[in-house]
Amino acid sequence: MLVASVRPLYADTDQMGVVNHAVALRWFELARAEWLRRLSYTYREFEETGHMLPVYEVGIRYYKPAYYDQLLSLEAELQISSPVRVIFEYRVRDQKTGTLLLEGTTKHAVTTKHGRPKALSDELRAIMQRGLAEQQTQHAARAQTG
Amino acid sequence: MLVASVRPLYADTDQMGVVNHAVALRWFELARAEWLRRLSYTYREFEETGHMLPVYEVGIRYYKPAYYDQLLSLEAELQISSPVRVIFEYRVRDQKTGTLLLEGTTKHAVTTKHGRPKALSDELRAIMQRGLAEQQTQHAARAQTG
Amino acid sequence: MLVASVRPLYADTDQMGVVNHAVALRWFELARAEWLRRLSYTYREFEETGHMLPVYEVGIRYYKPAYYDQLLSLEAELQISSPVRVIFEYRVRDQKTGTLLLEGTTKHAVTTKHGRPKALSDELRAIMQRGLAEQQTQHAARAQTG
Amino acid sequence: MLVASVRPLYADTDQMGVVNHAVALRWFELARAEWLRRLSYTYREFEETGHMLPVYEVGIRYYKPAYYDQLLSLEAELQISSPVRVIFEYRVRDQKTGTLLLEGTTKHAVTTKHGRPKALSDELRAIMQRGLAEQQTQHAARAQTG
Repeated sequence: MLVASVRPLYADTDQMGVVNHAVALRWFELARAEWLRRLSYTYREFEETGHMLPVYEVGIRYYKPAYYDQLLSLEAELQISSPVRVIFEYRVRDQKTGTLLLEGTTKHAVTTKHGRPKALSDELRAIMQRGLAEQQTQHAARAQTG
Repeated sequence: MLVASVRPLYADTDQMGVVNHAVALRWFELARAEWLRRLSYTYREFEETGHMLPVYEVGIRYYKPAYYDQLLSLEAELQISSPVRVIFEYRVRDQKTGTLLLEGTTKHAVTTKHGRPKALSDELRAIMQRGLAEQQTQHAARAQTG
Repeated sequence: MLVASVRPLYADTDQMGVVNHAVALRWFELARAEWLRRLSYTYREFEETGHMLPVYEVGIRYYKPAYYDQLLSLEAELQISSPVRVIFEYRVRDQKTGTLLLEGTTKHAVTTKHGRPKALSDELRAIMQRGLAEQQTQHAARAQTG
Repeated sequence: MLVASVRPLYADTDQMGVVNHAVALRWFELARAEWLRRLSYTYREFEETGHMLPVYEVGIRYYKPAYYDQLLSLEAELQISSPVRVIFEYRVRDQKTGTLLLEGTTKHAVTTKHGRPKALSDELRAIMQRGLAEQQTQHAARAQTG
């Protein structure tokens, strides 16, 4: 699910002449924030309910380099949403050609502001379920037209 | 193998009051540079031989938050060195208590400056083998004293 | 001249609960890239002509903190364009209220890829002059309607 | 006053093949933290007293590029310490040759955790005065041996 577009800055590149691999984690953060915003919800509001989503695991696979000022598509999907954890998957593509540049996963615990485990509130669970449902509708639509 | 110490900067923290998870990739980069420096070799010299080590996979697991100005131990180990790829493992600990905060892996292709596959030269292979041998000596020494 | 909008990421904040002051330099870079793009030109093309614009001076004044996910307006203006240097001014505002959060200046030398002084080519000078002219037209329009 | 040494990471460089200009602000932050640590005090303790030192002005002048893995000397001096503001000056040099690469200034307000103006406590004022006194002793010593 396409959630955002981004162009790497000069500050994101390194002397190999490509975007530094660490920048992927910025894109993932942007992608999950925009995934949530599509549901008319923001991570800021999420925090205001007293929940945090600290990252406890990250995995990234890089296929092609990204370049300065290249127009990139950020895709995010909620993979699993349980009361105590949330898992997102991401894909970053060249926007013109659709070529997959990298993909990854972030796993998040659900905690209080002080880092203690906390179950997602019913309201938040409902929002996440709505996001999952929208993803499935999109997949089904794509499968029919594909 | 302890290779470096580091204290997180204010700029490394985020509004959760802890070090942002993306900073782990800075520490890993620092750790593998210092791993190499222990062998009286630098990544700069590595590049001057016409080799690059672009990252093609990253994995990180976070156990405890790291804090501003906390004295951290960075550990790095070369896990695999083949002519075409190099895999490093890392652990980040609180230096005083030894508590493990996070650990991870980076996998690197061996390429030319233009990103094409290239085998490690004999000289570089010998350096990596020397590093592997030193690690084993250290492990053996620790096992005896342990 | 409004050139871009941006929302700070979590990774941009620090434990003071606001956006870290260093992020201003990312915004300035984004702003001058977009200033150039409005003229149907990109900094990437700029570099392809063999010119670089390394920063030799930076000044920033901070008036109000910026917050996570706050919608910000980035304004950029070319102040001076001589054959050997280029000076940009920036303002960052809250997009809703127009409140000025910070402003700054970056001064750039014009050099070759190897950092040696080089005069702007006639083509690039013409592009910069076109940008200056558009700014003045905008100022004049705003003065009339103001 | 030399307060720290640092080697730029790959992640600090950009595709110009040099350290990105924004990294100077990381070095300045590191330098003022180490300036304070020399007085057996830390910025963390500083915050624990309920004071913050948000940056309200930054100025940087760049003379020479810094490179990946170059050993750099960070110098910091407290220039002014009043009850309501603190000004630091910095110099970054190549450690081997002493060549000045860049210099800058950061100006800090003294505030509460909520960003409201607050005067430095007597204890903190005494620490800053001790730092100023040590700087003058060093300057005098250097003048005699110079």
